[in-house]
Amino acid sequence: MTMAYDPDNIFAKILRGEIPSTRVYEDDDTLAFMDIMPRADGHLLVIPKTPCRNLLDASPTQLSAVMATVQKLGHAVMAAFGAEGVTIQQFNEAAGGQEVFHLHFHVLPRHEGVRLRPPGQMGDMAAIAEQAERIRAALG
Amino acid sequence: MTMAYDPDNIFAKILRGEIPSTRVYEDDDTLAFMDIMPRADGHLLVIPKTPCRNLLDASPTQLSAVMATVQKLGHAVMAAFGAEGVTIQQFNEAAGGQEVFHLHFHVLPRHEGVRLRPPGQMGDMAAIAEQAERIRAALG
Repeated sequence: MTMAYDPDNIFAKILRGEIPSTRVYEDDDTLAFMDIMPRADGHLLVIPKTPCRNLLDASPTQLSAVMATVQKLGHAVMAAFGAEGVTIQQFNEAAGGQEVFHLHFHVLPRHEGVRLRPPGQMGDMAAIAEQAERIRAALG
Repeated sequence: MTMAYDPDNIFAKILRGEIPSTRVYEDDDTLAFMDIMPRADGHLLVIPKTPCRNLLDASPTQLSAVMATVQKLGHAVMAAFGAEGVTIQQFNEAAGGQEVFHLHFHVLPRHEGVRLRPPGQMGDMAAIAEQAERIRAALG
């Protein structure tokens, strides 16, 4: 079961530059940008540039491109924040935790003993901008 | 930063048939089997058959094979349990939530209003066996 793609979802608008985002990485097929409701310092999202609602309707090409970028950003956040681990989350449909209906993977830098913050809390935009700069620097 | 692969981790033993598992799907490159501490009915794990500690040291070939199986099993659990969504989790290093150091993706069937159960609680093996049978049937 898959449902339709809504071209007016907010990540589609971010891809079209209609609303701002704090971008940290981009290639031909994928974009990585900061989550504005970060559950950890350095929390970012990786999305394909082409339309796709979630994992259930993703093409092999979209998945391989996105996973390569998830891996690249996983290494980058380990370096940027001296992280000791990375948690990956990916939500499909509202019951699965999805809120924006364009495929995205959450990349969450982790440190021992530091729990994820509760979802749904807006982050400090200056702090997010500073974290983004550290991730860009780690990507070299 | 990546760390060494321990060939005696429990998923390596499952792959070698040295300890039992409730398998639901297998192809040349991947294996899917039931989580014995299910956080939702139908909770399963997808792993590559070749050694790999986690996302940080996975090859593109391992990732594409595993993601294809994650997608396939995502559809299967939607059908098998009439799920309304699927949550994917993938943990890297202990600080990231990883407990077994062989790359694995959690596939969690979800229903509206049903929260994930707390981690670390052993499941009922008869119920898990019945859920596995439903997933195999959905895979046709």
